[in-house]
Amino acid sequence: MSDRTELQRKPARAVMDRDAIHAVLDEGLVAHVGLIAGDDDTPHPVVIPMLYARDGNVMYLHGAPASRLLRMAKKGAEVCVTVTLLDALVLARSGLNHSMNYRSVVAMGTATEVSEHDEKVAALNRLVDHTIPGRSAQIRAAHDVEVKGTTVLVLPLDECSMKARTVGVLDDPDDLDDPAWAGLIPLGVAVGEPLPDDGSTGATVPGHVAFWSRGPGQLNGRPAEPEGTT
Amino acid sequence: MSDRTELQRKPARAVMDRDAIHAVLDEGLVAHVGLIAGDDDTPHPVVIPMLYARDGNVMYLHGAPASRLLRMAKKGAEVCVTVTLLDALVLARSGLNHSMNYRSVVAMGTATEVSEHDEKVAALNRLVDHTIPGRSAQIRAAHDVEVKGTTVLVLPLDECSMKARTVGVLDDPDDLDDPAWAGLIPLGVAVGEPLPDDGSTGATVPGHVAFWSRGPGQLNGRPAEPEGTT
Repeated sequence: MSDRTELQRKPARAVMDRDAIHAVLDEGLVAHVGLIAGDDDTPHPVVIPMLYARDGNVMYLHGAPASRLLRMAKKGAEVCVTVTLLDALVLARSGLNHSMNYRSVVAMGTATEVSEHDEKVAALNRLVDHTIPGRSAQIRAAHDVEVKGTTVLVLPLDECSMKARTVGVLDDPDDLDDPAWAGLIPLGVAVGEPLPDDGSTGATVPGHVAFWSRGPGQLNGRPAEPEGTT
Repeated sequence: MSDRTELQRKPARAVMDRDAIHAVLDEGLVAHVGLIAGDDDTPHPVVIPMLYARDGNVMYLHGAPASRLLRMAKKGAEVCVTVTLLDALVLARSGLNHSMNYRSVVAMGTATEVSEHDEKVAALNRLVDHTIPGRSAQIRAAHDVEVKGTTVLVLPLDECSMKARTVGVLDDPDDLDDPAWAGLIPLGVAVGEPLPDDGSTGATVPGHVAFWSRGPGQLNGRPAEPEGTT
């Protein structure tokens, strides 16, 4: 935790627990990666959505070598990577007290390129498995040309912070008799029926696809994975 | 559209249509707002999740007057506001061709503060109604002290761009006989049963709560709004 990531506002929403930070990063699907673009005289911020993966206390980002953001980041540009999970809409009796329950993690620092072949392959597998656990074991190994043709960056999670709102409606006492409905609308990740590619072999949908879900299971509209399946 | 928001990579994913851009902004729930923090010698990017609303060709942001990000933005710091919708996981036969279907909008520029009372009240109502359509009409008007105690910024949507991936699996021809399951897993916003606040009056859940949904209706796990309800 550094001065830069110390929370300026609502310190009650700060979460210091490293396990909680990792849990948010593991549940998220997309990160918003910010850096400073433009030249020295006219710098401006840029924020781009990216896939990512966590492994221990580092985060991986990847993309095509031509990606402007990755090229800048691997030259040492500082990045700010933010992952946000929305848990509920908070409907209060006044507009002011409307809010959202959420968990978000902000990681700052400088990324470096992963160049060593085996480490890069492991990072690419982590990136696939972050989004779809177990997936990398179900597909062919990456060809060398594919590994060489992808840029992978690693960002240490040394400077990160978490903020969360997890409570119910917080209304002014004067408003409690107001007839407006107040409460929470829980949010999660909805999952549709998997859509096989035209050439996809067979009608059997493997477990890592059929039971894919993220976050609170009861919200996602998909069958729960039976006990004992792998 | 400016040079800065012109897409550097995968121009096939660029979307130039203003209606499509507005539709993404209207469907999103949270924006990731980036700006340059730190002093001139040690600038660094910061990316924070925020609620927002679109109205015509502008976007509103709001928060407490003490918010560091809002204080910097209203002094003229350039911001980059990114809204991302995840539509599907793309499972290919190779790790490299795994992807995500998404729509994202990046808006850059300089925000200004909304100070005029009526304009500010209208913006605050837009902010409530962006998240929960029809909500502002169901709650009491904001007290003057609440309006004064909130900072509202307006960002023109003059410099924005959209990127989207909307197609199916794109595999290498050599991989098409691979036995790995390939296809899409559709994603959306899951909605749970509304949870009334303890003091909430009555058992009747109003329509704007009971039928709240976002994005593809068939995914969200909630009852569809009957025809003719308001």
